Amino acid sequence: MQNPTRTMDLKACATLYRNNLLQDVIPFWLNHSPDKKYGGYFTCLDREGKVYDTDKFLWLQCRQVWTFAMLYNRVEKQQVWLDTALLGAEFLARHGRSREGRWYFSLTREGQPLVQPYNIFSDCFAAMAFGQLFRATGDTAYRDIAVTTFDQILSRQDNPKGPYSKSVPGTRPLKNFALPMILTNLVLELEPILDPELVTHIIRRGVHTVMEEFYQPDQGLLLENIGPGGAPSDSFEGRLVNPGHGLEAMWFMMDIGSHTGNRALIDKAVKIALQLADYGWDDTDEGIFYFLDAKGHAPQQLEWDQKLWWVHAEGLVCMLKGYLHTGNEDCLHWFEKIHRYLWDHFVDEKHGEWFGYLNRQGEVLLPVKGGKWKGCFHTPRALFQGWKTLEAILETPSAQRPGNGAA
Amino acid sequence: MQNPTRTMDLKACATLYRNNLLQDVIPFWLNHSPDKKYGGYFTCLDREGKVYDTDKFLWLQCRQVWTFAMLYNRVEKQQVWLDTALLGAEFLARHGRSREGRWYFSLTREGQPLVQPYNIFSDCFAAMAFGQLFRATGDTAYRDIAVTTFDQILSRQDNPKGPYSKSVPGTRPLKNFALPMILTNLVLELEPILDPELVTHIIRRGVHTVMEEFYQPDQGLLLENIGPGGAPSDSFEGRLVNPGHGLEAMWFMMDIGSHTGNRALIDKAVKIALQLADYGWDDTDEGIFYFLDAKGHAPQQLEWDQKLWWVHAEGLVCMLKGYLHTGNEDCLHWFEKIHRYLWDHFVDEKHGEWFGYLNRQGEVLLPVKGGKWKGCFHTPRALFQGWKTLEAILETPSAQRPGNGAA
Repeated sequence: MQNPTRTMDLKACATLYRNNLLQDVIPFWLNHSPDKKYGGYFTCLDREGKVYDTDKFLWLQCRQVWTFAMLYNRVEKQQVWLDTALLGAEFLARHGRSREGRWYFSLTREGQPLVQPYNIFSDCFAAMAFGQLFRATGDTAYRDIAVTTFDQILSRQDNPKGPYSKSVPGTRPLKNFALPMILTNLVLELEPILDPELVTHIIRRGVHTVMEEFYQPDQGLLLENIGPGGAPSDSFEGRLVNPGHGLEAMWFMMDIGSHTGNRALIDKAVKIALQLADYGWDDTDEGIFYFLDAKGHAPQQLEWDQKLWWVHAEGLVCMLKGYLHTGNEDCLHWFEKIHRYLWDHFVDEKHGEWFGYLNRQGEVLLPVKGGKWKGCFHTPRALFQGWKTLEAILETPSAQRPGNGAA
Repeated sequence: MQNPTRTMDLKACATLYRNNLLQDVIPFWLNHSPDKKYGGYFTCLDREGKVYDTDKFLWLQCRQVWTFAMLYNRVEKQQVWLDTALLGAEFLARHGRSREGRWYFSLTREGQPLVQPYNIFSDCFAAMAFGQLFRATGDTAYRDIAVTTFDQILSRQDNPKGPYSKSVPGTRPLKNFALPMILTNLVLELEPILDPELVTHIIRRGVHTVMEEFYQPDQGLLLENIGPGGAPSDSFEGRLVNPGHGLEAMWFMMDIGSHTGNRALIDKAVKIALQLADYGWDDTDEGIFYFLDAKGHAPQQLEWDQKLWWVHAEGLVCMLKGYLHTGNEDCLHWFEKIHRYLWDHFVDEKHGEWFGYLNRQGEVLLPVKGGKWKGCFHTPRALFQGWKTLEAILETPSAQRPGNGAA
């Protein structure tokens, strides 16, 4: 297929995303992923979709429930989408939680617990999944799972790893970016079933944490780990930058800004996103680096220079939302750049879906379509968000777009 | 310097290793690593030796004590080597252990504990360090630290991670290769200060575990994780192969075979080492892969195709010892191949020491000389072992070398 953005044809792009989502990516998961015998999904799929491992990782099980329920709620009431969401949700409701109601990290194919509930993001994605499924079905049992899980997350948020934390308390107190960032998205997801005051409080706190504490204005960077009050820590953890994570967070901020009518928040998120894209882009080989060190030292992550699908998917959505909300032409330029890289390197036109892992040079490092960390989530979400954001851009007469002409 | 093995000049090789060790690698660490203010060592050194992080990781602190004490014991009674070993040992004795006598994973520069003693290999390397230092000094306080730590390791060996283990007990009981493998080396290191019956028992048990349980004769592979009795597990952990780890273990087995006069053990170790080298070698870009999946699936380690210094250092020692003990020409061939790759890619003739991390193509991925995992250990140990093994080969008239002519 000819790359439509070489001529910046946004309409063709919207169609491309819609078609890739509905005629390629979703059918790929529908064909290969459901475990009709035990429930849940296979996520370890090779290039052609063949299952190479049957373990069930909770992040990916939950995220796939969310994806199918979201498509049912927001694209079309397709019964097969709802059935697929339910296939995962029933398996999760039956096997996913410990006696204390915390979500395991992984299960065997049959649902036996393998890895303890040490990872609070399993809970985050479970709340997201069951919240979306309640919207699809109206079944209050799903709402209750979502709300109970969300309450548990809040009660654990200051010590998310609990007894599994390896840090000696007090020596170097660091706060990690991922949980506050994900909460800002999760709270919008669950807004209809949460107390409005709680929602307002969490949004205010989350925006402050992300934009005032993790964002370092002198460096123009979002750090992955900070000391008390946002103090940078000169350590491997403290110097870590994950540009894709930051770009994802910035579109969460734009969603909050758009939802709450906070223009200044949107403008600041766009400014940070443009700084991050500039910082994270590999001028030698193209694409966005996975990890960098804020002081330019060697990161401890050996995979630092690889190009990952989700980083580029999130960058794409971020830049499109930035353009929609501000009309800033730099966003459009970055969208075009990331779109081109993505389409030239990740999309597998032969066997469907996207590759997930490229080396620095952009060659396929692992030809799989899914594994322990890649499932049915970032790709379909980015295609959906990209498609809908492009439609919104096309529906906004350019003269009415804020900031138009001022870029 | 011209590569001496292109003509298989083993004498020039012995000189090369000796000189690289004594005139380059050891001076590099002596110049840049000692923390004269707080004791211990800086291990995070950039290409030129400049310190870029001051945290103290126990694996590397202990291993550097061991290296300098070992050189003092086995090469020359240089006071600066002993002083350097003591600089680390005193820091470790003062700050390294929790109240329960377990060794932390990391400390701040000043010696405050940062990461809990969750990792039993800190204890293994501490026992190794203080055992070697007792030999150098005769100070029984060091012997007592080594023996007490060794006893603790034995008491924890069936549940090494203790409360930090994330596995749900019972679902998929897996045993990891690293601890039994390291114990077979550690017990030889500590032999003079341990009960001879205990030594015999640990050797017998270790050899059985490594050679009968972890070794899978039908695949010709050593697995990193096995089920009860050596049963393979069809999971990410169960399919994992780390060829460098296996090659290192095989020279530990040859040392035990040589020490106990067990010819059959040496022959089996050589056979397995040759299979592993063949399996782990990258026919496209040369070098030995870091991780592979025994069934040929995608490993979960994104760094799987990288070329690491320690893998090649251990492979080199393994092949030289194999040749010394058996005269098998295949070992010599592999030694030559690994030597050439190592000298062409890892040795930094401009700024000294070796690079640690290359991408698949053999280009430098991180230009550092040390970090959280690379310190003053694998490189000097391999150079010392290579040098001494080459000398032993050169001193053995070829007609007397076992197996000569039969390869």
